[in-house]
Amino acid sequence: MSTAIKIGIAGYGNLGRGVEMAIAQNPDMALTGIYTRRDPASVQPQGSAVPVRPLASIGDYKDEIDVLILCGGSKNDLPEQGPALAALFNIVDSFDTHARIPDYFAAVDKAASAARTTALISVGWDPGLFSLNRLYGEAILPQGGTYTFWGKGLSQGHSDAVRRVPGVKAAVQYTLPVPDAVERVRSGTQPTLTTREKHTRECFVVLNAGADADEVRQAIVTMPDYFADYDTTVNFITEEELRRDHAAMPHGGFVIRSGTTGTGTRQVIEYSLKLDSNPEFTSSVLVAYARAVFRLSQAGSTGAKTVFDVPPGMLSAKEPAELRASLL
Amino acid sequence: MSTAIKIGIAGYGNLGRGVEMAIAQNPDMALTGIYTRRDPASVQPQGSAVPVRPLASIGDYKDEIDVLILCGGSKNDLPEQGPALAALFNIVDSFDTHARIPDYFAAVDKAASAARTTALISVGWDPGLFSLNRLYGEAILPQGGTYTFWGKGLSQGHSDAVRRVPGVKAAVQYTLPVPDAVERVRSGTQPTLTTREKHTRECFVVLNAGADADEVRQAIVTMPDYFADYDTTVNFITEEELRRDHAAMPHGGFVIRSGTTGTGTRQVIEYSLKLDSNPEFTSSVLVAYARAVFRLSQAGSTGAKTVFDVPPGMLSAKEPAELRASLL
Repeated sequence: MSTAIKIGIAGYGNLGRGVEMAIAQNPDMALTGIYTRRDPASVQPQGSAVPVRPLASIGDYKDEIDVLILCGGSKNDLPEQGPALAALFNIVDSFDTHARIPDYFAAVDKAASAARTTALISVGWDPGLFSLNRLYGEAILPQGGTYTFWGKGLSQGHSDAVRRVPGVKAAVQYTLPVPDAVERVRSGTQPTLTTREKHTRECFVVLNAGADADEVRQAIVTMPDYFADYDTTVNFITEEELRRDHAAMPHGGFVIRSGTTGTGTRQVIEYSLKLDSNPEFTSSVLVAYARAVFRLSQAGSTGAKTVFDVPPGMLSAKEPAELRASLL
Repeated sequence: MSTAIKIGIAGYGNLGRGVEMAIAQNPDMALTGIYTRRDPASVQPQGSAVPVRPLASIGDYKDEIDVLILCGGSKNDLPEQGPALAALFNIVDSFDTHARIPDYFAAVDKAASAARTTALISVGWDPGLFSLNRLYGEAILPQGGTYTFWGKGLSQGHSDAVRRVPGVKAAVQYTLPVPDAVERVRSGTQPTLTTREKHTRECFVVLNAGADADEVRQAIVTMPDYFADYDTTVNFITEEELRRDHAAMPHGGFVIRSGTTGTGTRQVIEYSLKLDSNPEFTSSVLVAYARAVFRLSQAGSTGAKTVFDVPPGMLSAKEPAELRASLL
């Protein structure tokens, strides 16, 4: 690779740090700048020599960025940043509010099409790699059922919901697939499973002094939308235990397509992830797809895209002939 | 879908029959003809009203075929048929001699580029879906190892090798992944595994009258290339047992990418297939990719292709907006 692909990072939290580390694993890519809404002086990148600049100034650095990786959150950051930054740069993001993807796609597509940039949205593992496997599974086995299980993994949204319960000082929540349900699906039986049958939820809670454990437990397990439809276990632990045993951000899960061919022949496709760090893995997916965005842009393919639009070969640093000889 | 995609089948063995059944599961596709080198009168399709015609006459039916699915073998049929038929039709095939893929790709590409047809080669599960997962895994986790395990599955080539041993009347051979090796890889340790440590081989043999079982066993387990590098079990059974217990063609396996991100964080991606019929599943993959070939052709993308070149969304009968709303 004669010239490295120049990458910028917009937003430097867990995801931004993960992207910085992932770029270091890809010799055909170079990080040229981190852009933040915070005071740049307060941001300390892991890599030694990467400039940190105000996000508001990013328009001055168009020559330094082939692809901008958006590392903000889906709730407050991306709905605004996605369209605004797609008007200036090729972008890739991890917008993960499933229900709002069509609206977000339309807004980004409008900006990117007008600016003739390439904007790949909703990249990561779900949406992202799990979506791909739902699609491949359904297209290959049209008669069948698709089952997505998540976990064991730390759920940020559910952890936040527990923290809002009166009497809770700190908490984490894990989502766990029900092993028996996974086995039934794997066996090819195509069961109908309720929400309660697919996943359980496990909370580790630090109480405020004087809080009533039974009241807190009751408030959690009956919480509509978040916990009422699940079998939920609440464990009370100390702050030290929380810090010591629950600081990691593991996640993962399974997409299983169970179908039949011919006259009832069972066929089962399973894709699974076992991630010791959810944000670092999501970052690695973003970086591989940043390479594809660069190539799509070079090929003149502009506007908003999703993982469904990207030829797999574009993710690799290898030449097509090398891919055919070594991986096919 | 207003007009169905018109599909032809060239070659009507296990794979051709599987393709015929798979097309029946896809309402946007219609089988318009089966082409064979045998006497057409001797070929009885499963579907009632599909014409069977001599392969030599296929050039007369260009209006009836949007995509031709080649169902011949990789050893003798495809090296000749692939380039010849790509000169007349959009094609998809399951060429699976890994070492010869570059040469075959070049020959098909030459014919397809000259004729402005679209020719997708080496589609199935390995090469095919397993190749895709080797590529995705390596691109997303560049620091790591990729492990492909096959089985439990019936291996046609190894079964044939056993049948050639003097004293053997009939036989099947199964390839089995070593469970302990799979578990070690799944755990994220990235072990170095020898051929013997990854797979075992199990043979079920019917002896000719008067044959010496020990001699046959010895001839099998010491056979170079096929068995000498493996721990091989030879079981002697009756013809009736062979017919009763070993007529199915199950297969499957695993592609596991085990990698590290950040400062040594373990991440494991696993793709697995559990197939009760290898040829029926391969056929289903061919049919989904035939849809993609039609779309690539409509989009003016001609020449030879592999699964690495195909945007995943093209496999689905659904519109892109529907895919984003329902599967992303």
